[in-house]
Amino acid sequence: MKNLTIVKIGGQILDDADLFSEFVSLFSQLKGEKILVHGGGKLVTDMAKQLGLSTQLVDGRRITDAASLKLATMVYAGYLNKNLVAQLQSQQCDALGLSGADASLIQTQKRPTTPIDFGYVGDLTATSINATRIQQFLEWGLCPVFSAITHEGQGQLLNTNADSIAAALAISLSSLYDVNLIYCFDKKGVLQDVSDEKSLIAVVKHSEKEQLIAAGVIVQGMIPKMDNAWSALQQGVQSVTIKKSSDLLNFNTGTSIQL
Amino acid sequence: MKNLTIVKIGGQILDDADLFSEFVSLFSQLKGEKILVHGGGKLVTDMAKQLGLSTQLVDGRRITDAASLKLATMVYAGYLNKNLVAQLQSQQCDALGLSGADASLIQTQKRPTTPIDFGYVGDLTATSINATRIQQFLEWGLCPVFSAITHEGQGQLLNTNADSIAAALAISLSSLYDVNLIYCFDKKGVLQDVSDEKSLIAVVKHSEKEQLIAAGVIVQGMIPKMDNAWSALQQGVQSVTIKKSSDLLNFNTGTSIQL
Repeated sequence: MKNLTIVKIGGQILDDADLFSEFVSLFSQLKGEKILVHGGGKLVTDMAKQLGLSTQLVDGRRITDAASLKLATMVYAGYLNKNLVAQLQSQQCDALGLSGADASLIQTQKRPTTPIDFGYVGDLTATSINATRIQQFLEWGLCPVFSAITHEGQGQLLNTNADSIAAALAISLSSLYDVNLIYCFDKKGVLQDVSDEKSLIAVVKHSEKEQLIAAGVIVQGMIPKMDNAWSALQQGVQSVTIKKSSDLLNFNTGTSIQL
Repeated sequence: MKNLTIVKIGGQILDDADLFSEFVSLFSQLKGEKILVHGGGKLVTDMAKQLGLSTQLVDGRRITDAASLKLATMVYAGYLNKNLVAQLQSQQCDALGLSGADASLIQTQKRPTTPIDFGYVGDLTATSINATRIQQFLEWGLCPVFSAITHEGQGQLLNTNADSIAAALAISLSSLYDVNLIYCFDKKGVLQDVSDEKSLIAVVKHSEKEQLIAAGVIVQGMIPKMDNAWSALQQGVQSVTIKKSSDLLNFNTGTSIQL
């Protein structure tokens, strides 16, 4: 099978002009079939403030109400996605910006409203990804660039976690490709000591999870990301790596997540 | 050659929930290969007000400054485009939302800054449209849905006139398809008396242009639209019609623009 690299980037790259420009250049140089998945950034928060929208929280967790979804659709699927595409195109990467609604590539289920109604949030299922269609795009030499906006098939757009989209794409496409999934991160990978970039842990195995959590090495925000990674590996994805975006083209960098 | 229908809709359909919903249903029922091109709507103006952006005008013409382009990209390529796509998908129309940057389908030239600097505006050229790629999408049964945001190939997005995009797509694709171009309008077509929908003029020929302008039948805003239509016909487009969106599926309605 051919190789496919799926790269996920988040806010820290989208918010920093230098990091963004470096990333676009490195990603464009990445050889072979590739897919980019991007999250949001500070722009949504900044615009929400300007528009006087308040963040709805229930039990400390963010709710996507109608106004937040509208803004997320504008910023993620519009501004960020199209600027990424235009920048990649200028570097001879034939990028195609997509939401999950486009060609119904990612159809999710609106999260049940009990016990907590999270609003317009879409959860991925085993049949969410239209892998055949994505393969067709890849075989033409196109590079799909996904924002984290999906739909439920009845006309409703939904906000979806970008890390989970990257994992779901990797799992679904692993029947057609040898998939390498890379989560770009603001550190060099998982660090033994978060303040010391030299304390990189080169390999993290599933059996070490509880021990690393207990030691405070894997902190709260990282746990779902790591769980996504292990779940992807269990379902046929060849490799999952967490690394700094500047290390994108360097092999044997970052933390390799293993079963 | 196969038939291809290109439909352009503007603000009046996007701003009215009933018209929008009716249009989505009718467009989804349209048989054969089809492309949708959409303009903006009131949302950009409303959001500009909320964000405290003032419209820049020079000699009465609107300037697209950086803040306007950012907002247009959010609203046109994000919110409006993805909602249109999700609605069409819910009606079994396999819509694919696109800007001109995506797969570099529409590459424009930034308008020269003299005599007036209109800002981030892209003008179409004879080679702007990537017809081969669009044909590939159509042959898969996808329905391209274009917002009026394009790029110049060096990473810069540009605001482009949606009527002109529809005409340029029609002209470029007329080497591959028999193209029927439909401009949806808030009236039944060109009216002899703008206040009387029964005064529809069924056919407008190029030779009648000056006479109709002199008689006040074709008013200021309509002239570029009509010129786009005649230009398209001169360059191989099979038919151009201006009609009400509710008449989309009814043949022999609206005004047929002819050479």
